[in-house]
Amino acid sequence: MAAASTSLGLAQAAGQAGGEPGQGPRAGRTLRFRQAVVTATAALAGPTEGRGPLGGAFDEVLPDHLLGEASWERAERKMLARAVERLAAKEGLRVTDYDVLLAGDLLNQTVASSYAARDLDLPFLGLFNACATFAEGLGLAAALCELGACRRAVVAVSSHHDAAERQYRFPTELGNQRPPTAQWTATGAVAVAVAREGAAPALARLEAFTPGRVVDLGVRDPFHMGAAMAPAAADTLAVHLGDLGRGPDAYDAVCTGDLGRVGLALVRRLLREAGVDLPHLEDAGVQLYDPRHQDVHAGGSGAACSALVFAARLLPRLRAGGRRVCLCGTGSLHSLTTYQQGESIPGIAHAVSLAAVEAS
Amino acid sequence: MAAASTSLGLAQAAGQAGGEPGQGPRAGRTLRFRQAVVTATAALAGPTEGRGPLGGAFDEVLPDHLLGEASWERAERKMLARAVERLAAKEGLRVTDYDVLLAGDLLNQTVASSYAARDLDLPFLGLFNACATFAEGLGLAAALCELGACRRAVVAVSSHHDAAERQYRFPTELGNQRPPTAQWTATGAVAVAVAREGAAPALARLEAFTPGRVVDLGVRDPFHMGAAMAPAAADTLAVHLGDLGRGPDAYDAVCTGDLGRVGLALVRRLLREAGVDLPHLEDAGVQLYDPRHQDVHAGGSGAACSALVFAARLLPRLRAGGRRVCLCGTGSLHSLTTYQQGESIPGIAHAVSLAAVEAS
Repeated sequence: MAAASTSLGLAQAAGQAGGEPGQGPRAGRTLRFRQAVVTATAALAGPTEGRGPLGGAFDEVLPDHLLGEASWERAERKMLARAVERLAAKEGLRVTDYDVLLAGDLLNQTVASSYAARDLDLPFLGLFNACATFAEGLGLAAALCELGACRRAVVAVSSHHDAAERQYRFPTELGNQRPPTAQWTATGAVAVAVAREGAAPALARLEAFTPGRVVDLGVRDPFHMGAAMAPAAADTLAVHLGDLGRGPDAYDAVCTGDLGRVGLALVRRLLREAGVDLPHLEDAGVQLYDPRHQDVHAGGSGAACSALVFAARLLPRLRAGGRRVCLCGTGSLHSLTTYQQGESIPGIAHAVSLAAVEAS
Repeated sequence: MAAASTSLGLAQAAGQAGGEPGQGPRAGRTLRFRQAVVTATAALAGPTEGRGPLGGAFDEVLPDHLLGEASWERAERKMLARAVERLAAKEGLRVTDYDVLLAGDLLNQTVASSYAARDLDLPFLGLFNACATFAEGLGLAAALCELGACRRAVVAVSSHHDAAERQYRFPTELGNQRPPTAQWTATGAVAVAVAREGAAPALARLEAFTPGRVVDLGVRDPFHMGAAMAPAAADTLAVHLGDLGRGPDAYDAVCTGDLGRVGLALVRRLLREAGVDLPHLEDAGVQLYDPRHQDVHAGGSGAACSALVFAARLLPRLRAGGRRVCLCGTGSLHSLTTYQQGESIPGIAHAVSLAAVEAS
């Protein structure tokens, strides 16, 4: 018997999580940072992602899914390591100039990250919150930099369509038919440099992070992950905005990642019902592909999806005269085993707010 | 082709990682904390672990491996949630009085932690560094508390012998024969409360954390994990002691977890060769079982192994008049897929030093 124990309770959640306003860097459940910045990004996209609307904004579009390796899993690891190397090159640093690597991916035992960490030779803290791992990493890296525990941290994530497909669902070569609610795991790897202010010129200030709680309303269909994750996204966004005392006007863009079209419609509805008005809410899974010529069904997913959109669209919008953006990374915390054992799919979402360097 | 790209280079590693002594809380690669403490632990051990030398020191010895559930995976999740509930009860708190849960386990997509987090309804940051996840969690929780981002954090880990066995190796019911170098995945779940000083009476001060880099000397045998992890343990211990300018005399106990007998002999030798003398080095995998009547071959392993020994032996030794102890959690970062694809097994180790409350 699978449980669906967590009610949503958006209204109650906001601002309730035991914070003491004014004491330390917390406001409710949300951490506020004063000295954490993003200094660079490096985004490597798969061939399909490269043909999408953001294709021109990635640092590199990969020619194929194998990169000369014998397996998709090895290719994913190579992508992730290459993203970090590219990041260091963009900053004019050696890879080992970074103090720590916070990384995760979707492969069992997060082996893309672990083997990439071996090849990069950096102190390594492995993370896993499925497709919310990128937002989790940004929050933890910001905390470490804010504390002064790091001068420079790298947050890196990857996902690989073919490797994920055969691990979570069916043999990839089978080309199994998928229902319209299904999402397409993105192929890509993204590395982001988070630093303590002053360590390097900043692209944006990392100003707040709300770690999400796990919400499960009982969806059991792994081809319906947008619906499984939408309640968590609504919960975290409501808390994030409530803790910071902000309305939608405070943001140039608020982007969930990666609910797809089905999940985006659901999170809008859940927020509306909870009295949170976010008319311009976007979703990374919707933005990564062009539905006119790329049939990925409900949209993109995968740990790299929200990170690719962050690097290629959200951060550039902030840089192009924006004031503030928010990424609410979403993750679906099931495994093949829990699916086969009849469990429902718990969702999680972590929200990160970024501000223009001039603003404060 | 599996790579073994990382050389050990202990001597060079110590103190080299770019730290600026005197600036902020870093010394080399090591983070130093002034306001992070451990306030409580709750350790639930499996039946076999309960019959071992530490059986009397656990908060609860589980009667069987299923706990009334239909699968080992569900039992593991239940254990983990129960450990956190027990921790809150010991502190006279509600579970939701904790600000955040940092947790991880060995199941694919760390589903024991994710589903437990759902049932506990706490903000959740998922971690994965295999059996080094517990030490990773202590370090990150200490950083969050030091920063004031948390008043109280829970670090929780679990492992389940039967669930791990069938996931990583063979169907558990097969009772497959194992070579003498093999280790026994411990069944258990441990939750530890890490707090900012002053939030609650402290059991110990969390004074320093060294995140480890991934070391891989080419071991490919998943029945020889002690050998795969020993180089990482030697690397991290040498850096930890070097960064802190400490010799073995500074510690009442230094404990790796979980190398087993084979790995412990190897790490002693590697450290000796690097000029680091740690004659009283112990290992959690050696201490959890009694070889006179428990044939677990080379010793224990599993994410819960080092956490069980931390709660039942290392922390009590500090409390019984000790001055300082160090846990160097070790993890083997392979998966079934990497093994089947012929890859070597990368190891990682994170070191945490704890001091008596009186000392400073």
